[in-house]
Amino acid sequence: MKLTFLGTGDVRQVPVYGCHCGACDAAREDDRLRRRPCSALLESDDKRVLIDGGLTDLAERFAPGDLNAILLTHYHVDHVQGLFHLRWGLNDSIPVYGPDDRDGCADLLKHPGILDFRAPLVPFVALIMGDVQITPLPLRHSKPTFGYLFERHGRRLAYLTDTVGLPPETEAFLKQYEDLEVVIDCSQPPCAEPPRNHNDLSLVLGIHQRLQPRRTWLTHLGHEMDVWLQQHSLPDAVCVARDNLELMLY
Amino acid sequence: MKLTFLGTGDVRQVPVYGCHCGACDAAREDDRLRRRPCSALLESDDKRVLIDGGLTDLAERFAPGDLNAILLTHYHVDHVQGLFHLRWGLNDSIPVYGPDDRDGCADLLKHPGILDFRAPLVPFVALIMGDVQITPLPLRHSKPTFGYLFERHGRRLAYLTDTVGLPPETEAFLKQYEDLEVVIDCSQPPCAEPPRNHNDLSLVLGIHQRLQPRRTWLTHLGHEMDVWLQQHSLPDAVCVARDNLELMLY
Ligand SMILES: [Mn+2]
Ligand SMILES: [Mn+2]
Ligand SMILES: [Mn+2]
Ligand SMILES: [Mn+2]
Ligand SMILES: [Zn+2]
Ligand SMILES: [Zn+2]
Repeated sequence: MKLTFLGTGDVRQVPVYGCHCGACDAAREDDRLRRRPCSALLESDDKRVLIDGGLTDLAERFAPGDLNAILLTHYHVDHVQGLFHLRWGLNDSIPVYGPDDRDGCADLLKHPGILDFRAPLVPFVALIMGDVQITPLPLRHSKPTFGYLFERHGRRLAYLTDTVGLPPETEAFLKQYEDLEVVIDCSQPPCAEPPRNHNDLSLVLGIHQRLQPRRTWLTHLGHEMDVWLQQHSLPDAVCVARDNLELMLY
Repeated sequence: MKLTFLGTGDVRQVPVYGCHCGACDAAREDDRLRRRPCSALLESDDKRVLIDGGLTDLAERFAPGDLNAILLTHYHVDHVQGLFHLRWGLNDSIPVYGPDDRDGCADLLKHPGILDFRAPLVPFVALIMGDVQITPLPLRHSKPTFGYLFERHGRRLAYLTDTVGLPPETEAFLKQYEDLEVVIDCSQPPCAEPPRNHNDLSLVLGIHQRLQPRRTWLTHLGHEMDVWLQQHSLPDAVCVARDNLELMLY
Protein backbone atom coordinates (compact mmCIF):
# COMPACT_ATOMS: atom_id res chain seq x y z
CA MET A 1 0.00 0.00 0.00
CA LYS A 2 1.00 3.62 -0.54
CA LEU A 3 0.17 6.74 1.46
CA THR A 4 0.37 10.10 -0.33
CA PHE A 5 0.29 13.19 1.83
CA LEU A 6 -2.09 15.55 0.05
CA GLY A 7 -1.92 18.22 2.72
CA THR A 8 0.26 18.55 5.82
CA GLY A 9 -0.79 21.92 7.23
CA ASP A 10 -2.68 22.93 10.31
CA VAL A 11 -5.98 24.83 10.21
CA ARG A 12 -4.21 28.05 9.17
CA GLN A 13 -2.19 26.36 6.40
CA VAL A 14 1.27 27.54 5.31
CA PRO A 15 1.54 30.31 4.22
CA VAL A 16 -0.74 31.92 6.77
CA TYR A 17 -2.68 34.77 5.18
CA GLY A 18 -0.76 37.99 5.77
CA CYS A 19 2.16 36.33 7.59
CA HIS A 20 5.75 37.12 6.63
CA CYS A 21 7.64 34.77 8.89
CA GLY A 22 10.46 32.78 7.30
CA ALA A 23 8.26 29.74 6.72
CA CYS A 24 5.35 31.62 5.17
CA ASP A 25 7.53 33.70 2.84
CA ALA A 26 9.45 30.59 1.77
CA ALA A 27 6.17 28.78 0.97
CA ARG A 28 4.99 31.70 -1.14
CA GLU A 29 8.18 31.54 -3.18
CA ASP A 30 8.33 27.75 -3.51
CA ASP A 31 5.05 25.95 -3.99
CA ARG A 32 6.60 22.70 -2.70
CA LEU A 33 6.85 24.26 0.75
CA ARG A 34 3.15 25.03 1.00
CA ARG A 35 1.09 23.08 3.50
CA ARG A 36 -2.50 22.54 2.49
CA PRO A 37 -5.32 21.20 4.70
CA CYS A 38 -4.21 17.97 6.36
CA SER A 39 -5.30 14.97 4.30
CA ALA A 40 -3.90 11.94 2.54
CA LEU A 41 -4.64 9.26 -0.04
CA LEU A 42 -4.22 5.57 0.77
CA GLU A 43 -3.87 3.29 -2.25
CA SER A 44 -3.66 -0.46 -2.42
CA ASP A 45 -4.03 -2.40 -5.67
CA ASP A 46 -7.44 -1.33 -6.89
CA LYS A 47 -8.59 0.61 -3.81
CA ARG A 48 -8.22 4.33 -3.23
CA VAL A 49 -9.28 5.86 0.07
CA LEU A 50 -9.22 9.57 0.75
CA ILE A 51 -8.36 10.40 4.36
CA ASP A 52 -10.15 13.68 5.16
CA GLY A 53 -11.72 16.11 2.73
CA GLY A 54 -10.23 19.50 3.55
CA LEU A 55 -8.80 20.22 0.09
CA THR A 56 -11.17 22.47 -1.81
CA ASP A 57 -10.19 21.20 -5.27
CA LEU A 58 -11.22 17.57 -4.82
CA ALA A 59 -13.41 17.68 -7.93
CA GLU A 60 -10.32 18.55 -9.98
CA ARG A 61 -8.05 16.00 -8.30
CA PHE A 62 -10.33 12.97 -8.46
CA ALA A 63 -12.40 11.87 -11.42
CA PRO A 64 -15.80 10.39 -10.61
CA GLY A 65 -15.27 6.79 -9.56
CA ASP A 66 -11.63 7.34 -8.51
CA LEU A 67 -12.37 7.13 -4.80
CA ASN A 68 -13.66 3.93 -3.25
CA ALA A 69 -14.29 5.62 0.08
CA ILE A 70 -13.65 8.69 2.20
CA LEU A 71 -12.43 8.20 5.74
CA LEU A 72 -12.91 11.14 8.10
CA THR A 73 -10.85 11.70 11.22
CA HIS A 74 -13.36 14.28 12.49
CA TYR A 75 -15.74 16.99 11.41
CA HIS A 76 -13.65 20.12 11.89
CA VAL A 77 -13.98 22.39 8.90
CA ASP A 78 -10.33 22.07 7.79
CA HIS A 79 -10.90 18.31 7.45
CA VAL A 80 -14.22 18.38 5.57
CA GLN A 81 -14.54 21.71 3.74
CA GLY A 82 -13.87 20.21 0.29
CA LEU A 83 -16.90 17.97 0.68
CA PHE A 84 -19.25 20.97 0.59
CA HIS A 85 -18.74 21.09 -3.18
CA LEU A 86 -18.06 17.43 -3.95
CA ARG A 87 -21.36 16.30 -2.46
CA TRP A 88 -23.38 17.91 -5.26
CA GLY A 89 -21.89 15.61 -7.89
CA LEU A 90 -24.04 13.48 -10.16
CA ASN A 91 -21.92 10.34 -10.13
CA ASP A 92 -22.25 7.26 -7.97
CA SER A 93 -22.34 7.81 -4.27
CA ILE A 94 -19.10 7.62 -2.25
CA PRO A 95 -19.16 5.79 1.09
CA VAL A 96 -17.96 8.02 3.93
CA TYR A 97 -16.77 6.58 7.23
CA GLY A 98 -15.97 8.47 10.39
CA PRO A 99 -16.53 8.95 14.10
CA ASP A 100 -19.88 9.31 15.83
CA ASP A 101 -20.58 13.04 15.60
CA ARG A 102 -24.20 13.78 14.74
CA ASP A 103 -23.52 17.50 14.45
CA GLY A 104 -21.15 16.90 11.57
CA CYS A 105 -20.11 20.24 10.08
CA ALA A 106 -22.56 22.92 8.89
CA ASP A 107 -25.27 21.22 6.79
CA LEU A 108 -23.12 18.32 5.53
CA LEU A 109 -25.08 15.51 7.19
CA LYS A 110 -28.43 17.17 6.47
CA HIS A 111 -27.69 17.57 2.75
CA PRO A 112 -25.20 14.78 1.95
CA GLY A 113 -25.77 14.68 -1.83
CA ILE A 114 -23.68 11.82 -3.24
CA LEU A 115 -21.86 11.33 0.05
CA ASP A 116 -23.09 8.12 1.61
CA PHE A 117 -22.42 8.66 5.32
CA ARG A 118 -22.26 5.18 6.81
CA ALA A 119 -22.96 4.24 10.42
CA PRO A 120 -20.28 5.67 12.72
CA LEU A 121 -17.23 3.47 13.11
CA VAL A 122 -16.66 1.72 16.43
CA PRO A 123 -13.30 2.11 18.22
CA PHE A 124 -10.97 -0.82 17.58
CA VAL A 125 -13.49 -2.56 15.28
CA ALA A 126 -11.78 -2.92 11.92
CA LEU A 127 -13.21 -2.06 8.55
CA ILE A 128 -12.02 -4.21 5.64
CA MET A 129 -11.40 -2.53 2.32
CA GLY A 130 -10.00 -4.86 -0.33
CA ASP A 131 -6.92 -6.32 1.29
CA VAL A 132 -6.47 -3.42 3.69
CA GLN A 133 -7.68 -3.59 7.27
CA ILE A 134 -8.53 -0.24 8.82
CA THR A 135 -8.89 0.06 12.59
CA PRO A 136 -10.37 3.24 14.14
CA LEU A 137 -8.36 4.49 17.11
CA PRO A 138 -9.78 7.08 19.52
CA LEU A 139 -7.78 10.32 19.67
CA ARG A 140 -7.92 13.23 22.11
CA HIS A 141 -9.33 16.36 20.47
CA SER A 142 -12.09 18.95 20.83
CA LYS A 143 -14.48 16.87 18.70
CA PRO A 144 -14.94 13.09 18.46
CA THR A 145 -11.87 12.06 16.46
CA PHE A 146 -10.41 8.82 15.10
CA GLY A 147 -6.92 7.96 14.06
CA TYR A 148 -6.62 4.89 11.84
CA LEU A 149 -4.32 1.90 11.73
CA PHE A 150 -3.90 0.62 8.17
CA GLU A 151 -2.66 -2.96 7.82
CA ARG A 152 -1.82 -4.99 4.74
CA HIS A 153 0.37 -8.08 4.44
CA GLY A 154 1.95 -7.42 7.83
CA ARG A 155 2.86 -3.78 7.05
CA ARG A 156 1.26 -1.21 9.32
CA LEU A 157 0.79 2.55 9.27
CA ALA A 158 -0.97 4.55 12.00
CA TYR A 159 -2.41 7.91 10.93
CA LEU A 160 -3.00 9.97 14.09
CA THR A 161 -4.39 13.48 13.67
CA ASP A 162 -5.86 15.70 15.12
CA THR A 163 -4.81 14.88 18.68
CA VAL A 164 -3.11 16.10 21.81
CA GLY A 165 -1.24 13.14 23.26
CA LEU A 166 -2.87 9.74 22.81
CA PRO A 167 -5.58 8.12 24.94
CA PRO A 168 -4.03 5.25 26.98
CA GLU A 169 -6.07 2.57 25.19
CA THR A 170 -4.89 3.80 21.78
CA GLU A 171 -1.28 3.95 22.90
CA ALA A 172 -1.50 0.45 24.43
CA PHE A 173 -3.08 -0.88 21.23
CA LEU A 174 -0.29 0.52 19.05
CA LYS A 175 2.45 -0.66 21.41
CA GLN A 176 1.83 -4.28 20.49
CA TYR A 177 3.17 -3.70 16.97
CA GLU A 178 6.78 -3.49 15.87
CA ASP A 179 7.98 -1.80 12.72
CA LEU A 180 5.05 0.66 12.66
CA GLU A 181 5.05 3.76 10.52
CA VAL A 182 3.43 6.53 12.56
CA VAL A 183 1.98 9.70 11.05
CA ILE A 184 1.06 12.16 13.78
CA ASP A 185 -0.24 15.64 14.53
CA CYS A 186 2.69 17.94 15.32
CA SER A 187 1.09 21.35 15.01
CA GLN A 188 3.54 23.23 17.22
CA PRO A 189 7.21 23.37 18.15
CA PRO A 190 8.05 22.57 21.80
CA CYS A 191 5.82 24.81 23.90
CA ALA A 192 6.08 25.86 27.53
CA GLU A 193 2.45 24.85 27.81
CA PRO A 194 1.37 22.30 25.20
CA PRO A 195 -1.52 23.51 23.03
CA ARG A 196 -4.94 22.36 24.15
CA ASN A 197 -6.09 20.34 21.15
CA HIS A 198 -2.91 19.48 19.25
CA ASN A 199 0.50 18.00 19.87
CA ASP A 200 3.60 20.05 20.18
CA LEU A 201 6.90 18.40 19.30
CA SER A 202 7.63 17.49 22.94
CA LEU A 203 4.48 15.39 23.16
CA VAL A 204 5.30 13.76 19.81
CA LEU A 205 8.82 12.85 20.89
CA GLY A 206 7.43 11.28 24.06
CA ILE A 207 5.05 9.14 22.00
CA HIS A 208 7.89 8.27 19.62
CA GLN A 209 10.01 7.14 22.59
CA ARG A 210 7.28 4.96 24.00
CA LEU A 211 6.00 3.40 20.76
CA GLN A 212 9.46 2.92 19.19
CA PRO A 213 8.04 2.90 15.66
CA ARG A 214 10.10 2.38 12.55
CA ARG A 215 9.56 6.03 11.73
CA THR A 216 7.40 8.88 13.01
CA TRP A 217 6.15 11.30 10.36
CA LEU A 218 5.06 14.76 11.46
CA THR A 219 1.96 16.22 9.83
CA HIS A 220 -0.64 18.98 10.53
CA LEU A 221 2.29 21.40 10.94
CA GLY A 222 1.72 25.08 11.65
CA HIS A 223 4.02 27.83 10.37
CA GLU A 224 5.73 28.15 13.76
CA MET A 225 6.73 24.50 13.59
CA ASP A 226 8.20 25.16 10.13
CA VAL A 227 10.16 28.14 11.47
CA TRP A 228 11.48 25.92 14.28
CA LEU A 229 12.53 23.32 11.70
CA GLN A 230 14.52 25.97 9.81
CA GLN A 231 16.71 26.25 12.92
CA HIS A 232 16.71 22.78 14.49
CA SER A 233 17.07 19.18 13.50
CA LEU A 234 15.06 16.15 14.56
CA PRO A 235 16.12 12.85 16.14
CA ASP A 236 16.75 9.87 13.86
CA ALA A 237 13.58 8.23 12.57
CA VAL A 238 11.52 11.36 13.16
CA CYS A 239 10.69 12.82 9.74
CA VAL A 240 8.78 15.79 8.43
CA ALA A 241 5.99 15.13 5.95
CA ARG A 242 5.46 17.41 2.95
CA ASP A 243 2.53 17.86 0.61
CA ASN A 244 2.72 15.27 -2.19
CA LEU A 245 5.27 13.07 -0.40
CA GLU A 246 4.62 9.36 -0.97
CA LEU A 247 5.23 6.62 1.59
CA MET A 248 5.57 3.21 -0.01
CA LEU A 249 4.62 0.31 2.27
CA TYR A 250 4.62 -2.94 0.35
CA MET B 1 -18.67 52.44 -8.77
CA LYS B 2 -17.91 49.11 -10.37
CA LEU B 3 -19.29 45.65 -9.67
CA THR B 4 -17.17 42.66 -10.69
CA PHE B 5 -18.88 39.29 -10.68
CA LEU B 6 -16.37 36.93 -9.03
CA GLY B 7 -18.69 33.93 -9.13
CA THR B 8 -22.10 33.42 -10.74
CA GLY B 9 -22.83 29.76 -9.97
CA ASP B 10 -25.34 28.08 -7.75
CA VAL B 11 -24.37 25.84 -4.84
CA ARG B 12 -23.31 23.04 -7.22
CA GLN B 13 -21.22 25.38 -9.43
CA VAL B 14 -20.68 24.81 -13.15
CA PRO B 15 -19.32 22.29 -14.04
CA VAL B 16 -21.16 20.05 -11.61
CA TYR B 17 -18.86 17.25 -10.41
CA GLY B 18 -19.44 14.25 -12.65
CA CYS B 19 -21.99 15.95 -14.92
CA HIS B 20 -21.66 15.76 -18.70
CA CYS B 21 -24.52 17.97 -19.79
CA GLY B 22 -23.77 20.49 -22.53
CA ALA B 23 -23.14 23.29 -20.04
CA CYS B 24 -20.83 21.33 -17.76
CA ASP B 25 -18.74 19.90 -20.60
CA ALA B 26 -18.45 23.35 -22.19
CA ALA B 27 -17.26 24.82 -18.89
CA ARG B 28 -14.62 22.12 -18.54
CA GLU B 29 -13.28 23.00 -21.99
CA ASP B 30 -13.46 26.77 -21.62
CA ASP B 31 -12.57 28.21 -18.24
CA ARG B 32 -14.53 31.39 -19.05
CA LEU B 33 -17.76 29.38 -18.89
CA ARG B 34 -17.16 28.13 -15.36
CA ARG B 35 -19.43 29.42 -12.64
CA ARG B 36 -17.82 29.64 -9.23
CA PRO B 37 -19.57 30.31 -5.91
CA CYS B 38 -21.80 33.35 -6.22
CA SER B 39 -19.97 36.47 -5.07
CA ALA B 40 -18.89 39.90 -6.28
CA LEU B 41 -16.58 42.80 -5.62
CA LEU B 42 -17.90 46.35 -5.34
CA GLU B 43 -15.33 49.08 -5.87
CA SER B 44 -15.66 52.84 -5.57
CA ASP B 45 -12.70 55.17 -5.49
CA ASP B 46 -10.69 53.88 -2.54
CA LYS B 47 -13.22 51.38 -1.17
CA ARG B 48 -13.39 47.68 -1.98
CA VAL B 49 -16.20 45.56 -0.58
CA LEU B 50 -16.40 41.81 -1.07
CA ILE B 51 -19.98 40.58 -1.39
CA ASP B 52 -20.01 37.02 0.01
CA GLY B 53 -17.03 34.80 0.72
CA GLY B 54 -17.70 31.53 -1.10
CA LEU B 55 -14.51 31.52 -3.21
CA THR B 56 -11.93 29.30 -1.57
CA ASP B 57 -8.91 31.20 -2.94
CA LEU B 58 -9.60 34.56 -1.32
CA ALA B 59 -6.12 34.65 0.24
CA GLU B 60 -4.63 34.49 -3.26
CA ARG B 61 -7.03 37.00 -4.79
CA PHE B 62 -6.80 39.73 -2.15
CA ALA B 63 -3.65 41.00 -0.51
CA PRO B 64 -3.94 41.92 3.17
CA GLY B 65 -5.53 45.35 3.39
CA ASP B 66 -7.20 45.10 -0.05
CA LEU B 67 -10.70 44.66 1.36
CA ASN B 68 -12.34 47.41 3.38
CA ALA B 69 -15.25 45.17 4.33
CA ILE B 70 -17.05 41.93 3.63
CA LEU B 71 -20.80 42.02 3.13
CA LEU B 72 -22.64 38.72 3.59
CA THR B 73 -26.01 37.97 2.04
CA HIS B 74 -26.43 34.94 4.33
CA TYR B 75 -24.57 32.14 6.06
CA HIS B 76 -25.08 29.25 3.63
CA VAL B 77 -21.81 27.45 3.10
CA ASP B 78 -21.48 28.37 -0.62
CA HIS B 79 -21.50 32.03 0.45
CA VAL B 80 -19.02 31.85 3.33
CA GLN B 81 -16.76 28.81 2.82
CA GLY B 82 -13.73 30.87 1.76
CA LEU B 83 -13.78 32.64 5.12
CA PHE B 84 -12.85 29.43 6.94
CA HIS B 85 -9.29 29.94 5.74
CA LEU B 86 -9.11 33.73 5.48
CA ARG B 87 -10.06 34.21 9.15
CA TRP B 88 -6.74 32.80 10.37
CA GLY B 89 -4.76 35.62 8.79
CA LEU B 90 -2.39 37.80 10.81
CA ASN B 91 -3.21 41.12 9.20
CA ASP B 92 -5.63 43.79 10.39
CA SER B 93 -9.17 42.67 11.06
CA ILE B 94 -11.78 42.97 8.30
CA PRO B 95 -15.25 44.26 9.22
CA VAL B 96 -17.97 41.80 8.23
CA TYR B 97 -21.61 42.85 7.87
CA GLY B 98 -24.61 40.63 7.36
CA PRO B 99 -28.05 39.54 8.50
CA ASP B 100 -29.02 38.50 12.01
CA ASP B 101 -28.19 34.80 12.09
CA ARG B 102 -26.54 33.76 15.35
CA ASP B 103 -25.95 30.23 14.07
CA GLY B 104 -23.67 31.55 11.35
CA CYS B 105 -22.02 28.62 9.58
CA ALA B 106 -20.06 25.88 11.35
CA ASP B 107 -17.66 27.52 13.86
CA LEU B 108 -17.23 30.80 11.98
CA LEU B 109 -18.80 33.08 14.60
CA LYS B 110 -17.24 31.15 17.47
CA HIS B 111 -13.71 31.40 16.03
CA PRO B 112 -13.77 34.57 13.90
CA GLY B 113 -10.00 35.15 13.79
CA ILE B 114 -9.39 38.43 11.94
CA LEU B 115 -13.02 38.65 10.81
CA ASP B 116 -14.68 41.40 12.78
CA PHE B 117 -18.36 40.41 12.71
CA ARG B 118 -20.28 43.60 13.33
CA ALA B 119 -23.78 43.91 14.80
CA PRO B 120 -26.36 42.50 12.38
CA LEU B 121 -27.61 44.97 9.82
CA VAL B 122 -31.18 46.25 10.11
CA PRO B 123 -33.53 46.01 7.11
CA PHE B 124 -33.73 49.28 5.16
CA VAL B 125 -31.21 51.01 7.47
CA ALA B 126 -28.32 52.08 5.25
CA LEU B 127 -24.66 51.59 5.93
CA ILE B 128 -22.33 54.27 4.56
CA MET B 129 -19.01 53.20 3.13
CA GLY B 130 -17.00 56.05 1.65
CA ASP B 131 -19.37 57.63 -0.86
CA VAL B 132 -21.43 54.47 -1.30
CA GLN B 133 -24.70 53.95 0.53
CA ILE B 134 -25.61 50.31 1.13
CA THR B 135 -29.18 49.42 2.12
CA PRO B 136 -29.99 45.88 3.36
CA LEU B 137 -33.13 44.47 1.75
CA PRO B 138 -34.87 41.37 3.17
CA LEU B 139 -35.02 38.44 0.77
CA ARG B 140 -37.00 35.19 0.90
CA HIS B 141 -34.73 32.20 1.52
CA SER B 142 -34.21 29.27 3.87
CA LYS B 143 -31.94 31.31 6.14
CA PRO B 144 -32.07 35.02 7.11
CA THR B 145 -30.86 36.70 3.92
CA PHE B 146 -30.24 40.26 2.74
CA GLY B 147 -30.01 41.68 -0.71
CA TYR B 148 -28.30 45.07 -0.94
CA LEU B 149 -29.01 48.30 -2.75
CA PHE B 150 -25.79 50.15 -3.60
CA GLU B 151 -26.14 53.88 -4.35
CA ARG B 152 -23.56 56.42 -5.40
CA HIS B 153 -24.08 59.78 -7.13
CA GLY B 154 -27.60 58.80 -8.16
CA ARG B 155 -26.59 55.46 -9.72
CA ARG B 156 -28.16 52.40 -8.13
CA LEU B 157 -27.54 48.66 -8.25
CA ALA B 158 -29.59 46.08 -6.36
CA TYR B 159 -27.86 42.76 -5.65
CA LEU B 160 -30.55 40.19 -4.82
CA THR B 161 -29.44 36.64 -4.06
CA ASP B 162 -30.29 34.07 -2.70
CA THR B 163 -34.06 34.48 -2.99
CA VAL B 164 -37.29 33.01 -4.26
CA GLY B 165 -39.44 35.93 -5.38
CA LEU B 166 -39.11 39.13 -3.36
CA PRO B 167 -40.83 40.07 -0.10
CA PRO B 168 -43.48 42.77 -0.83
CA GLU B 169 -41.66 45.41 1.23
CA THR B 170 -38.43 44.86 -0.70
CA GLU B 171 -40.21 45.00 -4.05
CA ALA B 172 -42.09 48.16 -3.01
CA PHE B 173 -38.85 49.77 -1.87
CA LEU B 174 -37.10 49.05 -5.17
CA LYS B 175 -40.07 50.18 -7.25
CA GLN B 176 -39.50 53.81 -6.26
CA TYR B 177 -36.27 53.94 -8.28
CA GLU B 178 -35.88 54.36 -12.02
CA ASP B 179 -32.85 53.29 -13.99
CA LEU B 180 -31.91 50.54 -11.53
CA GLU B 181 -29.43 47.81 -12.35
CA VAL B 182 -30.76 44.59 -10.84
CA VAL B 183 -28.61 41.53 -10.15
CA ILE B 184 -30.78 38.60 -9.15
CA ASP B 185 -30.82 34.89 -8.27
CA CYS B 186 -31.88 32.89 -11.32
CA SER B 187 -30.84 29.39 -10.33
CA GLN B 188 -33.24 27.52 -12.60
CA PRO B 189 -34.85 27.70 -16.04
CA PRO B 190 -38.66 28.04 -16.08
CA CYS B 191 -40.00 25.24 -13.87
CA ALA B 192 -43.45 23.71 -13.63
CA GLU B 193 -43.12 24.23 -9.91
CA PRO B 194 -40.68 26.97 -8.94
CA PRO B 195 -37.86 25.74 -6.68
CA ARG B 196 -38.43 26.30 -2.99
CA ASN B 197 -35.54 28.59 -2.10
CA HIS B 198 -34.42 30.11 -5.42
CA ASN B 199 -35.89 31.88 -8.40
CA ASP B 200 -36.54 30.19 -11.66
CA LEU B 201 -36.52 32.36 -14.79
CA SER B 202 -40.31 32.80 -14.71
CA LEU B 203 -40.18 34.43 -11.31
CA VAL B 204 -37.28 36.63 -12.44
CA LEU B 205 -39.13 37.79 -15.55
CA GLY B 206 -42.14 38.70 -13.39
CA ILE B 207 -39.93 40.80 -11.13
CA HIS B 208 -38.28 42.38 -14.18
CA GLN B 209 -41.72 43.30 -15.56
CA ARG B 210 -42.84 44.89 -12.32
CA LEU B 211 -39.63 46.75 -11.41
CA GLN B 212 -38.83 47.87 -14.97
CA PRO B 213 -35.13 48.25 -14.22
CA ARG B 214 -32.58 49.50 -16.71
CA ARG B 215 -31.21 45.95 -16.88
CA THR B 216 -31.68 42.71 -14.97
CA TRP B 217 -28.57 40.58 -14.58
CA LEU B 218 -28.98 36.87 -13.85
CA THR B 219 -26.60 35.31 -11.34
CA HIS B 220 -26.44 32.18 -9.10
CA LEU B 221 -27.11 30.10 -12.23
CA GLY B 222 -27.24 26.33 -12.10
CA HIS B 223 -26.11 24.10 -14.98
CA GLU B 224 -29.72 23.47 -16.07
CA MET B 225 -30.17 27.21 -16.54
CA ASP B 226 -27.01 27.27 -18.70
CA VAL B 227 -28.35 24.38 -20.80
CA TRP B 228 -31.59 26.29 -21.25
CA LEU B 229 -29.61 29.36 -22.35
CA GLN B 230 -27.84 27.30 -25.00
CA GLN B 231 -31.27 26.83 -26.64
CA HIS B 232 -33.22 29.98 -25.84
CA SER B 233 -32.79 33.71 -25.81
CA LEU B 234 -33.78 36.28 -23.23
CA PRO B 235 -35.94 39.42 -23.49
CA ASP B 236 -34.21 42.76 -24.06
CA ALA B 237 -32.53 44.17 -20.96
CA VAL B 238 -32.32 40.75 -19.32
CA CYS B 239 -28.66 39.73 -19.33
CA VAL B 240 -26.63 36.78 -18.16
CA ALA B 241 -23.77 37.45 -15.77
CA ARG B 242 -20.47 35.60 -16.15
CA ASP B 243 -17.55 35.15 -13.77
CA ASN B 244 -15.18 38.16 -14.06
CA LEU B 245 -17.71 40.34 -15.90
CA GLU B 246 -17.49 43.98 -14.81
CA LEU B 247 -20.43 46.36 -14.53
CA MET B 248 -19.37 49.99 -14.66
CA LEU B 249 -21.76 52.38 -12.91
CA TYR B 250 -20.27 55.83 -12.77
MN1 LIG C 1 -7.12 20.15 11.93
MN1 LIG D 1 -9.35 19.48 14.41
MN1 LIG E 1 -26.38 30.02 -2.72
MN1 LIG F 1 -28.44 30.05 -0.01
ZN1 LIG G 1 4.04 32.45 9.11
ZN1 LIG H 1 -24.29 19.74 -15.93
